[in-house]
Amino acid sequence: MTDSTNQVIAAWQPRVLAIATAASDSDGAHDSAHLHRVWANARALMAAAPEDNADPLIVLAACYLHDLVNVPKTDPRRAQASRLSAVAACAALAASGFPADLLDGVAHAIEAHSYSAALPAETPEARIVQDADRLDALGAVGLARLFYTAGRMGSSLAHGADPLALHRPLDDRSYALDHIVAKLAALPAMMQTAAGRALAHERLTGLLAFREQFAREWSAAA
Amino acid sequence: MTDSTNQVIAAWQPRVLAIATAASDSDGAHDSAHLHRVWANARALMAAAPEDNADPLIVLAACYLHDLVNVPKTDPRRAQASRLSAVAACAALAASGFPADLLDGVAHAIEAHSYSAALPAETPEARIVQDADRLDALGAVGLARLFYTAGRMGSSLAHGADPLALHRPLDDRSYALDHIVAKLAALPAMMQTAAGRALAHERLTGLLAFREQFAREWSAAA
Repeated sequence: MTDSTNQVIAAWQPRVLAIATAASDSDGAHDSAHLHRVWANARALMAAAPEDNADPLIVLAACYLHDLVNVPKTDPRRAQASRLSAVAACAALAASGFPADLLDGVAHAIEAHSYSAALPAETPEARIVQDADRLDALGAVGLARLFYTAGRMGSSLAHGADPLALHRPLDDRSYALDHIVAKLAALPAMMQTAAGRALAHERLTGLLAFREQFAREWSAAA
Repeated sequence: MTDSTNQVIAAWQPRVLAIATAASDSDGAHDSAHLHRVWANARALMAAAPEDNADPLIVLAACYLHDLVNVPKTDPRRAQASRLSAVAACAALAASGFPADLLDGVAHAIEAHSYSAALPAETPEARIVQDADRLDALGAVGLARLFYTAGRMGSSLAHGADPLALHRPLDDRSYALDHIVAKLAALPAMMQTAAGRALAHERLTGLLAFREQFAREWSAAA
């Protein structure tokens, strides 16, 4: 990024963070640390592919505001959360004097980041934000967030007799461990950027090794 | 164990499990799968040191009933939970026709298992139950239980700017990651059996490696 771009980003980062934190609840898996990590991931992806010319201000705003409207995973309106977040984010940004010509780009990147919404990411910024958010579901922090969210939702750690789901359908609403194969294992192939895909594959390898070790310990009790 | 001992254990296991599950709540970190794992750990520790002559029926009952009375970690009566569990367990066992001469042994093993109560384990059975329960706080399952419990309690995953607590005191009520060093890292040296100590050291190595990886991912956003 050029010096003038860096100055614009540095000026806007505290403002978009303030919009995000004003709306946040007590969910430790989606707090401001998550937003900072998504933005850090996004910066790394932009640096890895400067030829894509992603607009860093669109990426910044979408990273910090992608979860602005929180809908619980168990709520039937879950698939609409990213659209609601896009609308709320653009309203707040417009009121803050954010460049009006960038709002459509921010809205699309927020809408398209969602796994549940399943919309195609049509701009470089949307591809980067989607990958940056998904990278935070993988790796050691992703593993911690997975079980943290299971504790909040009150699901079980794993199926008592068949933790690896060898003889039953996957059910990650009921069993936290199932989430690794039911959702996270699919993410590397869905990544939109080459750098994101490489990092996602590397992190997934660690998660799958954890799953095997978990099952060995868990099944010693069978 | 001899065949006749195995028959006694097989007859009592469903009865102590029934007592335990009648009292259980929805905590996936302390459900019947946890009790089965503690009992599996205890059997392995007994097999590793048959010369200690631990009574398997005392160990069985104490493993399944050690958490019978649940007191939240944030409750000031937390340190009394193991004494309350011992009293409730012995009452339920006596009503079930459990051998009366073994009740004192069960009560001591339950009271002494607790980290918060900090009582010395004075019998082979108490040493085995304490180690068996602590082993389930380590390893991959222990890691999952740690973050699951943090989600239930609503604490943060880690300190935003200093996840490894290099420049602040440890605070595992506020930051889940701190629990690895604040409590779990002390467990191997506190283990009461040689087999338990060896396994605890091995599992802690994995937890400390996870902590380093978590901090690398977390701090990339700083």
